[in-house]
Amino acid sequence: MKDEVLNEIRQIIPQERILLGLADRHSYGYDASFGEYLPDVVVQPLSAEEISALVKLCNRHRIPVYPRGSATSLSGGPLPVEGGMVIDMSQMKNKLLIDRENMLAIVSPGVITGDIHKKAEEAGLFYPPDPSSSHVSTIGGNILENSSGPKGLKYGTTKEYVIGLEVVTPLGDIIRTGGKTVKNVTGYDLTRLIVGSEGTLGIVTEVILRLIPKPPARKTLLAAFDRVEDSGHAITKILSSGILPAAMELMDNACIRAVEEYSPCGLPVDKEAIVIIEVDGHPAAIAEEIVQCEQICRDQGASLVQVAQNETEREAIWKARKMVSPAITKMGPTKISEDATVPRSQIPAMMRKLREIREKYRLNLVVFGHAGDGNLHPNIITDKRNKEEMKRVEDAIGEIFEAALSLGGTLSGEHGIGTLKAPYMELELGPAGLAMMRKIKESWDPNNIMNPGKIFPRPGQTRVELI
Amino acid sequence: MKDEVLNEIRQIIPQERILLGLADRHSYGYDASFGEYLPDVVVQPLSAEEISALVKLCNRHRIPVYPRGSATSLSGGPLPVEGGMVIDMSQMKNKLLIDRENMLAIVSPGVITGDIHKKAEEAGLFYPPDPSSSHVSTIGGNILENSSGPKGLKYGTTKEYVIGLEVVTPLGDIIRTGGKTVKNVTGYDLTRLIVGSEGTLGIVTEVILRLIPKPPARKTLLAAFDRVEDSGHAITKILSSGILPAAMELMDNACIRAVEEYSPCGLPVDKEAIVIIEVDGHPAAIAEEIVQCEQICRDQGASLVQVAQNETEREAIWKARKMVSPAITKMGPTKISEDATVPRSQIPAMMRKLREIREKYRLNLVVFGHAGDGNLHPNIITDKRNKEEMKRVEDAIGEIFEAALSLGGTLSGEHGIGTLKAPYMELELGPAGLAMMRKIKESWDPNNIMNPGKIFPRPGQTRVELI
Repeated sequence: MKDEVLNEIRQIIPQERILLGLADRHSYGYDASFGEYLPDVVVQPLSAEEISALVKLCNRHRIPVYPRGSATSLSGGPLPVEGGMVIDMSQMKNKLLIDRENMLAIVSPGVITGDIHKKAEEAGLFYPPDPSSSHVSTIGGNILENSSGPKGLKYGTTKEYVIGLEVVTPLGDIIRTGGKTVKNVTGYDLTRLIVGSEGTLGIVTEVILRLIPKPPARKTLLAAFDRVEDSGHAITKILSSGILPAAMELMDNACIRAVEEYSPCGLPVDKEAIVIIEVDGHPAAIAEEIVQCEQICRDQGASLVQVAQNETEREAIWKARKMVSPAITKMGPTKISEDATVPRSQIPAMMRKLREIREKYRLNLVVFGHAGDGNLHPNIITDKRNKEEMKRVEDAIGEIFEAALSLGGTLSGEHGIGTLKAPYMELELGPAGLAMMRKIKESWDPNNIMNPGKIFPRPGQTRVELI
Repeated sequence: MKDEVLNEIRQIIPQERILLGLADRHSYGYDASFGEYLPDVVVQPLSAEEISALVKLCNRHRIPVYPRGSATSLSGGPLPVEGGMVIDMSQMKNKLLIDRENMLAIVSPGVITGDIHKKAEEAGLFYPPDPSSSHVSTIGGNILENSSGPKGLKYGTTKEYVIGLEVVTPLGDIIRTGGKTVKNVTGYDLTRLIVGSEGTLGIVTEVILRLIPKPPARKTLLAAFDRVEDSGHAITKILSSGILPAAMELMDNACIRAVEEYSPCGLPVDKEAIVIIEVDGHPAAIAEEIVQCEQICRDQGASLVQVAQNETEREAIWKARKMVSPAITKMGPTKISEDATVPRSQIPAMMRKLREIREKYRLNLVVFGHAGDGNLHPNIITDKRNKEEMKRVEDAIGEIFEAALSLGGTLSGEHGIGTLKAPYMELELGPAGLAMMRKIKESWDPNNIMNPGKIFPRPGQTRVELI
């Protein structure tokens, strides 16, 4: 980085929040997905004004800018793929206000999402989005990726709770979108455009979240099925019976075995699938609903159903689900986590296709996910040093996307496109659909400095490149 | 309209769906807001392909295009303010499919929203958005305006239910956005950008709506208050007690008297405010909740609370609310309906400001609305032939918007900006915020043919012009 530019940066923020050492820069070069890159400089701003000045500087010098929260992205959102400046947003975390009367939270982007859950619950309120990384990921990152987790079915995704933003635009202006009201139709919905834009349309510097009353009670069950198809039918039957569970989580046999090996907790390792169902709401309502859920699971062929009788038993059931990620991480040095999503009725078909792909490419492919909203997580456990296997992984990833699309689904339910799925965008959107997105990007970011290399494929790029 | 252009139109759609007579054109020149304009031609397409060809033709000849549903817009959405072509979408209504398994509706844009309600309920499902015009307005119009009605508080707005669209872009391409899954983060959320874009970013030709299970039961009460402030406190207390009603509707004294005069139903004409509260969900839950709501209303000073004991009594309560619009329409020849929205806690303050404005400008200003989400409807009953009074109306409208913004609110909660609120956009968004919206419009619609004259103010325009 040129001295001239560095001197300008020093005019904007003090030396101690500018990181230039190689080790520092390396530690900002990766995330929870794939690939490592080296930024030229890392800055730690504390205000929208500092970010605005930095972004204007980067426009003048055509320096790429990458906003970064806790870097738990599974799609490459914060990767500094073209060098340049990483903006570490994790230090901008001074504000976490709960407005009880209006049922809102007003939050700095660097606040950990789990802290919002806690503060809201202390006020008798509830912020439903709960990505599995919520104990470490920032709300700013959650918003830019529209992360959601298990509660999308009943409660919607992060997007459904973000009603206002302060944003530094790609040209460095500070704007406010939306506000403190659930209803707002004053012009285009820039709030929802920015949520999920993966940092390519601006940097979020303040967030207004809608909260809802905390559900007074919840009930949880675990059902095990000999046939994965039966679990799919149970899920559909429960929903068409009028029950809307807070979560319906699926684990396939490979996940069950991985968890049981990693941290034995008595899971039935001979079953094809486990489904975890949680209902929440009024105690009288859920007492009935959990009995209905149990009955439907049994009717659809569940050979084992456990209803948690207390909080300890509930936690034991959820522990099985939460152990999936660490357990499968132990299975090999490289984990590639996808989130192809299909209409709920297509889950049994998608599970079949995933099995075929696993066999065709001889890969360690395990599947879990949020079955209620069709959001599956096929994970491939591999070793990036094994070039021959990585080639097969590349092919398998392409087929996973094709399978999801052929079933009426989408490339990504909650992880974002980032670097890894960009080559497949046109497959889903067609050239005209993708062109409309590009027009927004180009009109907002004429110098293409805001998180370049994400979402949009390079010309001619039609497959993921892992080697 | 030139013969050459007309001949081209006749190549695209048959003569009987091209309206050129003066009477026909006049009948497409107004909506439920203000002002009359004369289009050059009205067309009634039946497919996305026809619309695509028409839009391409309009680009070649620089002809303004106005999509129009049932023209119930209260903000001027479909008004052909610059002449040109009205596209009557109301005939494109052949598809209304309910996908029970995936809890979706797939719908043509000309379908009446009330028909979606009926079809969904027949399948045990529920489409919550319910603008008061839903028995006549089209889903396409509801989507482009993001209309919502009384259930926004608990269930969100139209936007929260639209997960996929087929759209003809301003350049005439046919694209698909979103899809059949609740979770979809594949690139920018064009679906939500188009919802509420008031027809300025394209024409919706097919819609995928998310449905939810139909709530099994509901309970309704009417509470009357001697002081409007007390009704505001009751609303806030109910919400902070953990109850999330399906609707909380407010009527001020002027509305109560107007309804009682129009269609006597025993409303207490001496009260300052009536609040209608409806809870829905599991029977056991709502049986408790309605008792709590009643108690809170009494504690906050309600001098009268009626809980509907059966469906007939429920209908009688809702009739009072539904009579407001026809009743106040009878009060004068011209009705101007606003929808300034404030954070819920500011409703008492907003009611005070509206009273001051009414007195200052000596206007017949009545207020009702969706109090639970802060979405008030101040209506001015006037006579557009009275130029002196219309001048005062213009001033009052400006002050209503300033009041809403000063309380942290927004110009429009659900009616849209259209022609009437465009002059105030910069007041809410600032020049930079408005500029970001303009960039999207300009990049998508370089010839500015798609519903021109809406949302964006003309240069220098800073107040509504009614005379």
